Amino acid sequence: MPNTNRQVLLLETPAGKLGTEHFRLAEAPMPSPAEGEVLLRVRCLSLDAASRAWMQGATYRSAVEAGSVMAGLALAEVAESRAPGLASGDLVLAETGWQEWAAVPAAGLRRLPRVEPITHLLSVYGVAGLTAYFGLLEVGRPKAGDTVVVSAAAGSVGSLAGQIAKIQGATVVGIAGGAAKCRLLTEELGFDAAVDYKAADFHAALKAAAPKGIDVYFDNVGGDVFEACLFRMNLHGRIACCGAVSQYDGRPPAHGPRGVPGLIVTRRLRLQGFIVHDYLERSDEAIAPLQRWVAEGRLRVREDIVEGLEQAPAGLVGLLAGANVGKRMVRVS
Amino acid sequence: MPNTNRQVLLLETPAGKLGTEHFRLAEAPMPSPAEGEVLLRVRCLSLDAASRAWMQGATYRSAVEAGSVMAGLALAEVAESRAPGLASGDLVLAETGWQEWAAVPAAGLRRLPRVEPITHLLSVYGVAGLTAYFGLLEVGRPKAGDTVVVSAAAGSVGSLAGQIAKIQGATVVGIAGGAAKCRLLTEELGFDAAVDYKAADFHAALKAAAPKGIDVYFDNVGGDVFEACLFRMNLHGRIACCGAVSQYDGRPPAHGPRGVPGLIVTRRLRLQGFIVHDYLERSDEAIAPLQRWVAEGRLRVREDIVEGLEQAPAGLVGLLAGANVGKRMVRVS
Repeated sequence: MPNTNRQVLLLETPAGKLGTEHFRLAEAPMPSPAEGEVLLRVRCLSLDAASRAWMQGATYRSAVEAGSVMAGLALAEVAESRAPGLASGDLVLAETGWQEWAAVPAAGLRRLPRVEPITHLLSVYGVAGLTAYFGLLEVGRPKAGDTVVVSAAAGSVGSLAGQIAKIQGATVVGIAGGAAKCRLLTEELGFDAAVDYKAADFHAALKAAAPKGIDVYFDNVGGDVFEACLFRMNLHGRIACCGAVSQYDGRPPAHGPRGVPGLIVTRRLRLQGFIVHDYLERSDEAIAPLQRWVAEGRLRVREDIVEGLEQAPAGLVGLLAGANVGKRMVRVS
Repeated sequence: MPNTNRQVLLLETPAGKLGTEHFRLAEAPMPSPAEGEVLLRVRCLSLDAASRAWMQGATYRSAVEAGSVMAGLALAEVAESRAPGLASGDLVLAETGWQEWAAVPAAGLRRLPRVEPITHLLSVYGVAGLTAYFGLLEVGRPKAGDTVVVSAAAGSVGSLAGQIAKIQGATVVGIAGGAAKCRLLTEELGFDAAVDYKAADFHAALKAAAPKGIDVYFDNVGGDVFEACLFRMNLHGRIACCGAVSQYDGRPPAHGPRGVPGLIVTRRLRLQGFIVHDYLERSDEAIAPLQRWVAEGRLRVREDIVEGLEQAPAGLVGLLAGANVGKRMVRVS
């Protein structure tokens, strides 16, 4: 083991757009696990749009603090265990933050199965897959024949949510930024249609892609795209509110979407927010079908792997600008 | 029977605020029921904020058309029946519009029980009571000990929804305009607290009245009050979206409330719109407990009766300005 632990610190919480200048690479002494803890070697860091929201203040977790190691979930390997139930070589998901090594309490860690590639533990069998699975099926509840629209559809959660909706027999429309992502959705991931929200004809294209209206909207973005979908919702439609990435990278917007709550009333809509944490105890329910669908080739997993801890800041900044396709993560070791 | 039928016509659909000048009193020949129809003598017209929304375009019903009899629900008495199942003297609720007499198809009409006073058939046992009952219990779903906030709490639906929440064991905060209405809520209707949304300290007063946050918000108004409550919602809170009266009397607003959908996600809220029509088949489920609560004195019914068909326009204009306390209706005969 080395003597030092490389880390990425968040220097300040940005008022406007997040940039790589808000981070700094640092070195710290190697951590040492106390009784009941494990020493983890970080293999892959998850990059998530929500990380930017954490900088805006307390959300479903406490705010990220300036001057400390940037927070984040990782796939990590136990290097040394001082706790029962975990042994050297075990893989776990843990809130290590952006660093190479971390000593963390073993309580709450769960040994993961070895899958190939192990990165799937951070994507389809990790937070992204569980979010897509429970958010779509428990919150959105599409029926066969429904029109399901997914935003940020080329992203980690959206790409899976859309495919799961197809497996349920829905007609699925993805919203993504740019022609290349839209092609990916229809040509590789089996979406019925894709709409480019950056295109001038976005509203008309959305209407054309969902001519019978929208029964379930899986919202990852908030803002104008949310508003556009809200206005196309069918009676008794459901909006699964998963995230609002359009709102994270800058000041909170001064206003919300038009039509709230008027359209919610007249169309008897249900908007429901959720966080995957609320479903973690039920992970096994999701993992089994997800594995089966992957094995059968019905669920394609896109991963977008950035190499090296030092690339984590640029990786997150890029993710917020929509540069990723599928689940973005950082390979640390 | 007279030879003529007095009616109130809607002359034009207003672009800005609704005024009495948008209506005109007219006379038409007495209608005559065809086979399968009944001739109805209107006893009381229901005045509803939603009537103004109908003028903005198609909602859950088609838009009200300029030049025709103003639409509205009435408590009416069968004067002549050409249909089986209904006889002269029977009371029914019917979409007669604003007029003294109407010939309407008997299909879909249901003979109402005689209650004393009959106006309760338009208030607590009518749309207002059913809306409050199902909206609160089926959509909002308060548990004992929850904090329930109701807006337009001195209005027809709000005054009942708040009292029903008290009966369920919730702590109930009403939001209303002005000190007199607020006093009514706490001194006569048993609300735990009341907050005046027109007061300068509205936000602080709301926070003080609901110090543990809001579990269920029964929203009748939308707009700024909706936003204020949204920001005070507890984790897993529910917003029953019943109406948006703050948005009806003028142009549709350019923006919605802040925090949508961001707060919906982080606090895992459920916002659900509903229209009482969706529950009408289950009316009996509600009527029985409503009658019991009224008989026991646990549910106080406030009615605000305007005398004379010609006063209907002023009555609706006043209702939109918040002049009513409890269920406003027009006694026609």
